[in-house]
Amino acid sequence: MRRLAAIALVTLIAAAPPAKPRTPSEIVAGAPKADWRDISAEDLVVFELEGGRKVVMQLAPAFAPVHAANIRALARGGWWDGAKIYRVQDNYVVQWGNNESDKPLPAGVAAKPPAEYHRARKGLQITPLGSPDAYAPAAGFSGGWPVAYDPKAGTANLAHCYAMVGVGRDLSPDTGTGGELYAVIGHAPRHLDRNIAVVGRIVAGIEHLSSLPRGTEALGFYKERSFDVPIVKARLATELPAAERPLFEYLAGPSFAAYLQARKNRQDDFFIRPAGGADLCNINVPVRAVPAG
Amino acid sequence: MRRLAAIALVTLIAAAPPAKPRTPSEIVAGAPKADWRDISAEDLVVFELEGGRKVVMQLAPAFAPVHAANIRALARGGWWDGAKIYRVQDNYVVQWGNNESDKPLPAGVAAKPPAEYHRARKGLQITPLGSPDAYAPAAGFSGGWPVAYDPKAGTANLAHCYAMVGVGRDLSPDTGTGGELYAVIGHAPRHLDRNIAVVGRIVAGIEHLSSLPRGTEALGFYKERSFDVPIVKARLATELPAAERPLFEYLAGPSFAAYLQARKNRQDDFFIRPAGGADLCNINVPVRAVPAG
Repeated sequence: MRRLAAIALVTLIAAAPPAKPRTPSEIVAGAPKADWRDISAEDLVVFELEGGRKVVMQLAPAFAPVHAANIRALARGGWWDGAKIYRVQDNYVVQWGNNESDKPLPAGVAAKPPAEYHRARKGLQITPLGSPDAYAPAAGFSGGWPVAYDPKAGTANLAHCYAMVGVGRDLSPDTGTGGELYAVIGHAPRHLDRNIAVVGRIVAGIEHLSSLPRGTEALGFYKERSFDVPIVKARLATELPAAERPLFEYLAGPSFAAYLQARKNRQDDFFIRPAGGADLCNINVPVRAVPAG
Repeated sequence: MRRLAAIALVTLIAAAPPAKPRTPSEIVAGAPKADWRDISAEDLVVFELEGGRKVVMQLAPAFAPVHAANIRALARGGWWDGAKIYRVQDNYVVQWGNNESDKPLPAGVAAKPPAEYHRARKGLQITPLGSPDAYAPAAGFSGGWPVAYDPKAGTANLAHCYAMVGVGRDLSPDTGTGGELYAVIGHAPRHLDRNIAVVGRIVAGIEHLSSLPRGTEALGFYKERSFDVPIVKARLATELPAAERPLFEYLAGPSFAAYLQARKNRQDDFFIRPAGGADLCNINVPVRAVPAG
């Protein structure tokens, strides 16, 4: 029976029309475990809003090591407990923190971090986007992050895509401590690239930030302090009991390469004219909570 | 006195350091009236949500004339009164309409509009973006709209930038009637360009859509019909009493050209490294309510 079935199967395959290209979702759903890379628990910070809503941030120490270390020290020192979301600017950013004159920075926080606005290209494995970029000579993906780079200058930087997190700062040479952060909630404000330390991204719960009421003052600041949205607390994933610790992974390897090509050339039944290219920030590297088991 | 003053002024100018380049906001604030172009009241539809919140859509008949005519007929026929927002997908779209099997289309609505996914480049005056585009051979602005175009093929299309409005459709050859619309509330989903009829944009009140709770079902659909957000009514601006009629204008002419250059080369005190380029959908053509007087 098995043999017959096998023969029947071969006949079916021979008679079938050419295999339909897989959609981006099918590629993600079918990716083998080997193509999912763990995100280190060391790099995860869990912000908790009222009602138990969680917003999980992944730090990018490979790009902004001093700012990432600062944010870990801020979380450990309780800096975010009782902090406020005080700015929500439509199609731009949500910003949160404390007034540094009201609440002193915890121990171990560098007051004047270096300008971690870009880094050496060397040492990064980059999957090229393969489409032109308006902000840099080249763009692609490294370690699950959207990056722009300049092969001639030998530099690379994280791109201000949706959900990426940057460090609020005043005028240069101030780079910000990490005590005030913003997340992108609109079209990628790539003009900020290489002008601010991008320190990570929101990997879960961005909708709790992007759906907040917009601030009505200039730059989206809330008009009254009573409108501020409280952050109940923030903890490093490594500080949480094992049962509560979030685990995330991102798509890499051949499955990510296939996903990238499929996003550039959509072949779903819906699409009539695949673009043949894509914008760096319209790719959305797949990130997911690690499935149980 | 006048003469002396004039001489003193010349001296001051000669002694001053080179003029600081104007920021994009300064260019918009200082633009002469001649560089603001009226948006025709014929092209404005006012959607009203509960609590009197207004969302104003501008139609683009130069790009999708049959769909634009349909939407005018739908508004006149009361189609949107009692319609629902039933889909809010984070970093993607808000979608609203009626179930066409529950509510018949009003008279004058073409049931099968042509595929107005692109048009002839000819007849459009385009200010080129001057930066590479990942989705088309060229991009720029025409009549205040972000457009992508193909000089060789002689075609042009509206780009799916933030706040642009498209016509929901099923599989081809269905192009949608206009009875279901979506607005972009995230990073530009440009892969939809030339695959859907883009019929306009939200010129005021996008924040009433972008801040709605996200739907938790696949594709951002609300899980229960009770979560749907009602549209109280929609009226063409031309149907409203003169005192309530919205008036909008967009920036054009030399001021828009200067704004575009300033957005590509940010020179505010904040910026350390101007990009020297910009993405089509990160330009945001200035549109404003016509100031009184």
